[in-house]
Amino acid sequence: MKLFFSPTSPYVRKCLVAAHELGLGGRIEFLPSNAHPVNRDRTIIAKNPLGKVPTLLTDDGLALYDSRVICEYLDQLAGGSLFGEGAARWSALTLQALGDGILDGALLARYEDAARPEPLRWSDWRAGQLDKGETSLAHLEAHPDLLAPGRIDIGSIAVACALWYLDLRFGDTDWRARFPSVARWYADFSTRPSWRADWTN
Amino acid sequence: MKLFFSPTSPYVRKCLVAAHELGLGGRIEFLPSNAHPVNRDRTIIAKNPLGKVPTLLTDDGLALYDSRVICEYLDQLAGGSLFGEGAARWSALTLQALGDGILDGALLARYEDAARPEPLRWSDWRAGQLDKGETSLAHLEAHPDLLAPGRIDIGSIAVACALWYLDLRFGDTDWRARFPSVARWYADFSTRPSWRADWTN
Repeated sequence: MKLFFSPTSPYVRKCLVAAHELGLGGRIEFLPSNAHPVNRDRTIIAKNPLGKVPTLLTDDGLALYDSRVICEYLDQLAGGSLFGEGAARWSALTLQALGDGILDGALLARYEDAARPEPLRWSDWRAGQLDKGETSLAHLEAHPDLLAPGRIDIGSIAVACALWYLDLRFGDTDWRARFPSVARWYADFSTRPSWRADWTN
Repeated sequence: MKLFFSPTSPYVRKCLVAAHELGLGGRIEFLPSNAHPVNRDRTIIAKNPLGKVPTLLTDDGLALYDSRVICEYLDQLAGGSLFGEGAARWSALTLQALGDGILDGALLARYEDAARPEPLRWSDWRAGQLDKGETSLAHLEAHPDLLAPGRIDIGSIAVACALWYLDLRFGDTDWRARFPSVARWYADFSTRPSWRADWTN
């Protein structure tokens, strides 16, 4: 399998952590990419007309996207249980949507800070996008059952990737001080081998 | 079941078309909402910390989001086949991701036009977001098998909702002239009873 890759994409990270949890990490070859919302990457577009990473090219010729589809494909390929069944599935999928929603807001705030020309930035928009993360982390802090120790499914992986991206791009927000239970959970999660893998070797 | 509703949300529409295709339309009660990326709706946030529509409150007390999760839940509840299995599932899910990706870009362009103060608008960003739709419709035009007549799954529903939203907000782009096969498919799809349902009655 081949994956259009970016080291700073949290959605690529989600796929790779899932792959390593499933024992498939060694089977994924990386393809370089330059996905950007304004200067669009025509190499990716040839396989995924949205021009976004992650995009997975499977061994039997499929081009799969986005990260949710790729992760479910990897799970099925490995006979895994990252998605669960019945009530566990709805919980995993909704928690994944929560993690992805935090990320969507954070990515839009990042584009506001780093891509948009400075005179065109709108602080209310940036604040509203980052507030999705605030209200979501408050929800997780108030419902510790959602991040029970040892919960390894696509939901917990997505939340971990969201926290990783907040640290990467918004390291000054000090979310750990406001959400200490989430911080403890993340400290534990980030010791997993799947999290610590060096993707580029 | 209760659904936080907005008549102009394409993702709400996706859920409702799916529900009607599955024979569940009459079982969904609408809850009013005022989702907005800057002035966030605290009533929705109490159930979904991302504060977005659609959010579904199930009869057994779950709060499910986003549209992908809701649609899959409805499909399973009805014993439907909107998601398929095996190769059909990867095709349906990836086509759904394509439709959703067109929509994500179109929604960002809409926020640029309608929410952001005029002096802060960035034309390159708007153009890049709408170009996701252009390259995606070109892909569909070049691969007519993706929109075969009578294809009714979550992928085709998502694409139809994307086209609906382009007409609603960007009616001057005349996509039908550039993508006539997609236009013919959409004209046929939009005659379905599920598409024509009057949601608010």
